[in-house]
Amino acid sequence: MPMEASALAYVLWSRLMRYNPANPQWSNRDRFVLSAGHGSMLLYAMLHLTGYDLSLEDLKNFRQWKSRTPGHPEYGRTPGVETTTGPLGQGFAMGVGMAMAERFMANLFNRPGFPVVDYFIYALVSDGDMMEGISSETASLAGHLGLGKLIYIYLDNRITIEGSTDLTFSEDVGKRFEAYNWQVQRVDGYDLFGIEDAVNRAQKDLSRPSLIIARTCIACGSPNKENSCEAHGAPLGAEEVTLTKQNCRWPEKPDFLVPDEVLSFFRRAIARGKETESSWAYLFKEYREGHPDLAARWDAMHRNPQAFPWESSLPKFEPADKPIATRAASGRVLAAIVPHLPGLIGGSADLAPSNNTFLKGFGEFKKDKGPNIHFGIREHAMGAILNGLALSKALIPYGGTFLVFSDYMRPAIRLAALMKLPVIYVFTHDSIGLGEDGPTHQPIEHTASMRAMPNLTILRPADANETAEAWRAALLNREGPTALVLTRQNLPVLDRSRYGSADGVHKGAYILADAPNGNPELILIGSGSEVHLLVAAQDQLKTRGIAARVVSAPSWELFQKQSAEYKETVLPSRTRARLAVEAGCSFGWERFVGLDGDTITVDRFGESAPDKVLFKEFGFTVDNVVKKAEDLLKKNK
Amino acid sequence: MPMEASALAYVLWSRLMRYNPANPQWSNRDRFVLSAGHGSMLLYAMLHLTGYDLSLEDLKNFRQWKSRTPGHPEYGRTPGVETTTGPLGQGFAMGVGMAMAERFMANLFNRPGFPVVDYFIYALVSDGDMMEGISSETASLAGHLGLGKLIYIYLDNRITIEGSTDLTFSEDVGKRFEAYNWQVQRVDGYDLFGIEDAVNRAQKDLSRPSLIIARTCIACGSPNKENSCEAHGAPLGAEEVTLTKQNCRWPEKPDFLVPDEVLSFFRRAIARGKETESSWAYLFKEYREGHPDLAARWDAMHRNPQAFPWESSLPKFEPADKPIATRAASGRVLAAIVPHLPGLIGGSADLAPSNNTFLKGFGEFKKDKGPNIHFGIREHAMGAILNGLALSKALIPYGGTFLVFSDYMRPAIRLAALMKLPVIYVFTHDSIGLGEDGPTHQPIEHTASMRAMPNLTILRPADANETAEAWRAALLNREGPTALVLTRQNLPVLDRSRYGSADGVHKGAYILADAPNGNPELILIGSGSEVHLLVAAQDQLKTRGIAARVVSAPSWELFQKQSAEYKETVLPSRTRARLAVEAGCSFGWERFVGLDGDTITVDRFGESAPDKVLFKEFGFTVDNVVKKAEDLLKKNK
Repeated sequence: MPMEASALAYVLWSRLMRYNPANPQWSNRDRFVLSAGHGSMLLYAMLHLTGYDLSLEDLKNFRQWKSRTPGHPEYGRTPGVETTTGPLGQGFAMGVGMAMAERFMANLFNRPGFPVVDYFIYALVSDGDMMEGISSETASLAGHLGLGKLIYIYLDNRITIEGSTDLTFSEDVGKRFEAYNWQVQRVDGYDLFGIEDAVNRAQKDLSRPSLIIARTCIACGSPNKENSCEAHGAPLGAEEVTLTKQNCRWPEKPDFLVPDEVLSFFRRAIARGKETESSWAYLFKEYREGHPDLAARWDAMHRNPQAFPWESSLPKFEPADKPIATRAASGRVLAAIVPHLPGLIGGSADLAPSNNTFLKGFGEFKKDKGPNIHFGIREHAMGAILNGLALSKALIPYGGTFLVFSDYMRPAIRLAALMKLPVIYVFTHDSIGLGEDGPTHQPIEHTASMRAMPNLTILRPADANETAEAWRAALLNREGPTALVLTRQNLPVLDRSRYGSADGVHKGAYILADAPNGNPELILIGSGSEVHLLVAAQDQLKTRGIAARVVSAPSWELFQKQSAEYKETVLPSRTRARLAVEAGCSFGWERFVGLDGDTITVDRFGESAPDKVLFKEFGFTVDNVVKKAEDLLKKNK
Repeated sequence: MPMEASALAYVLWSRLMRYNPANPQWSNRDRFVLSAGHGSMLLYAMLHLTGYDLSLEDLKNFRQWKSRTPGHPEYGRTPGVETTTGPLGQGFAMGVGMAMAERFMANLFNRPGFPVVDYFIYALVSDGDMMEGISSETASLAGHLGLGKLIYIYLDNRITIEGSTDLTFSEDVGKRFEAYNWQVQRVDGYDLFGIEDAVNRAQKDLSRPSLIIARTCIACGSPNKENSCEAHGAPLGAEEVTLTKQNCRWPEKPDFLVPDEVLSFFRRAIARGKETESSWAYLFKEYREGHPDLAARWDAMHRNPQAFPWESSLPKFEPADKPIATRAASGRVLAAIVPHLPGLIGGSADLAPSNNTFLKGFGEFKKDKGPNIHFGIREHAMGAILNGLALSKALIPYGGTFLVFSDYMRPAIRLAALMKLPVIYVFTHDSIGLGEDGPTHQPIEHTASMRAMPNLTILRPADANETAEAWRAALLNREGPTALVLTRQNLPVLDRSRYGSADGVHKGAYILADAPNGNPELILIGSGSEVHLLVAAQDQLKTRGIAARVVSAPSWELFQKQSAEYKETVLPSRTRARLAVEAGCSFGWERFVGLDGDTITVDRFGESAPDKVLFKEFGFTVDNVVKKAEDLLKKNK
């Protein structure tokens, strides 16, 4: 791919893109996304040539332990790499989020004469990107939104790992993108003038995203492997490299050769970049004088998008309040904090009324360039767009859907976790408690399967106050994504004068209701809606002379981060009679209950019926908790 | 939706589709897929009206505990329901698999004058289906393959849950599908003649799948909620139901009314269906006489697609053989069994050379209607197509990709598990052992996250012979999907004269190498490539006087199914010093090691480097296993 796309990269990096190699963080740089991440060396080569902090030594360390040139581009590892790519379609999709960030920020900050936010998002995309469904979802939405700042170049090489695209891919890509309302152009991928003209035309059409279909050949220049699928995933081999160099009239040695005149030509990017950023900085200086409030807000958002005084606005809920679903409490939190958080932006994959994610009184993204995004029935697109928004570093993106449909967006969640992006997921309808929609809509394994993912924090609050604290934890977590797992059904507000404070959420698990003298013979542990069963069961057990402790465990990840001492306080090693109760699969709960404990969980798919019937049939009753607890104590005696 | 699509359903069920209400299993019936599964009552109503075994009482039990009319159609629960739908896009996509099954079976069995396989796949699809990426993936592939038996009717109602599709969805769907090489027609969704004409034209074009865009209105007939998003997910309410009945000049009472003349009109389907199946049965009788071998094969495949003498052909591997990756061993298994299994069909999402999934010597699906499918870079499509193929009940579908990309197909895997379909996944490159491609391609949490899913059996074999047994287990498992989790890197073939037999795979976990006298002070347990570390560590521990048992645990699900006695034999309760070693996350391993054990696992994302470097850096060395084991024994003393 680096050989295939060299002409395109040359034109983009030497003539078209605005960037400053000395400051890869310059906010108004054009973004470059190598969606075809397997061609990472193309990006590394351009970064090296144009003077980013990436040496020839780094290039020689390609795909080696802790090198700055890993197999696929990794965000945070290499200066100038805008995002991690490799899983196909993700770069394409995140670019759409980047373009939405550009539009949102431009609307927030640009003022007449002050286009302080004004950049393009370029991407190189491959056949694989085009085949993945996520690209279709985001392309449709990008066309709908008219994201004119997107300029995607499609490497139409007609080769995949298995062979010619004739094997699998004969659609008319151009026509498809026209149907999405994109500007579509076709160029020869080696016609420098043609490429530049096409990009210029793409830049001029600010009402539509642009797709430039560049006819290219894989391993271009290799006499025997050009246009061959053998060149897709495997190196050319020493002999073919030599033949290729001969074919291109390039010196055979040394292996890594950048002729001085080539380097000095590319390194003009340094001076050009300095000048480009300076002009912008000058503009921004005038902007700061003319619009000091906006500039202050700009600074604050870029320093830390949650560093505004929002915490005091978090709602508090009282036991006297009517029972409230945690999804509804979450909606109340959003409504309370959004006036204080200019970077808050998000929405739902067509379930806003159910997810309680709409920010009332705030603008819609399409109509007003406001923070309310209608993602459509496109969960995977939503996931990747949230990543693209988060990469702005100035925004706080959130997205909602039913917990069960987190499956649709899992590859994007994984990238958020891998990049440690502070994205917030609002996953509602978190158990069989969603009732009649039945097993296709009832999550069973989803919370567990997300708990298995590194860097992802999951919070399943037990009541409205835990929900407020869960949002606080999510907003304060700048080290990775957070998933809020919320009920459809109403839950009582726990009486915190009687029980442990909801602050405990921040420790992941905490003693909600202790046994007399803090000396339990039995620990009841659970999360979310099931915590209420535990509290009631504790009372019943007490009348039977059994001293039980109730632990509310909204977040395993936060608990994991606590000191050994704290963990021992909550779950003393000596107390082995432990019963976990959660309306999800048992998988993973052995971490807390060990070999001697027990669980009340759901280890099968759900059923279509009213939620109260389901909870009863699946054993989520106070009576069953009491019974299981007593059985467990007997077993452990 | 039932109100919206009533005219379409009427035309399809009363005039166009061939089916036999008395025998929903008749192999040559037309398939009807309600991709917009939330409109389940439309399907239930048609099944009731046309005389399937579904009573008015069943309809009254809509969405109630254990009823045959759950919130979304559920395969296996209701006669005439071809597949479970609800998660949007899945029905659309599974229909493509059904059409591929039709083509494959037709090629296997049809002979001049004997079109014993010849049916259409009809689907009603919604805006939501159209927005989901999986539909794009499968539509592109269906167009590429020219699946002319597909006839999809798109309910173009321009309403979603959040409001008008103007909010999110303005693409030109027809043009997009033309770009995919579909026949596209537009009709008024209430013009009975127009609908019939369009379907007739769709039936006639056997070289292209067909999309009929039917302009419809949601809640058609309701005076106040027609064309309103309020009608999407919520009932009309008693008052509006009354108004609607008045509007349609329908008696207000009783609530469930089927006038006799309506019922007798629809129930003509019973006689029609009997006649239709009879004609086919007559044809098949002649076919049986003319082609007895084919008919016998047909019978066998339909009775049980794996009931052929394939087991004896499974390859055996010897310790003297060169080390071999389990993915390569899997390829050897496929090559050995395919001549014996006429129903075997599958391929890879463009990674066949890496997944070792290509059936050499057998035809390609597109060119020859053979069993080798090139899915393209479309994992999610692959997952759903495998489901569609499995729904034929005569085929054994399998699909390969890198384990990390199982995330892309998770919603389809979930449906396979929910429907208990015998689909086989070949997930290779199963750990950091894939090396240089780095964290985007290295699965960490995937095996664990799949272990959390009900009905899914996962097998991670430790060597080539376990791989053969894993395939045996997968093929014998007709109660749900099976995922094979295989290495990229070579592994030695374990000497079974010294160690436990690979048959142990079928018990999920077994004693591979026991402590002297079967009396371990320590248990080393693991799966896949890490088992070899355990065996070597056991030897070293022995020299230090420590009696360790090595347990190979390729499948937690199979182990779970064993008797308590067997489990106790393998993992005696008294032995609490247990060390689990797996190159994946620790999540879930506490099920085996409890609160007193330990793990050597990967609880962070991977790195780009050669696999040997990674295994060392991540602690997967014999020395580290020995050290951790010794530490553990100390702790437990």
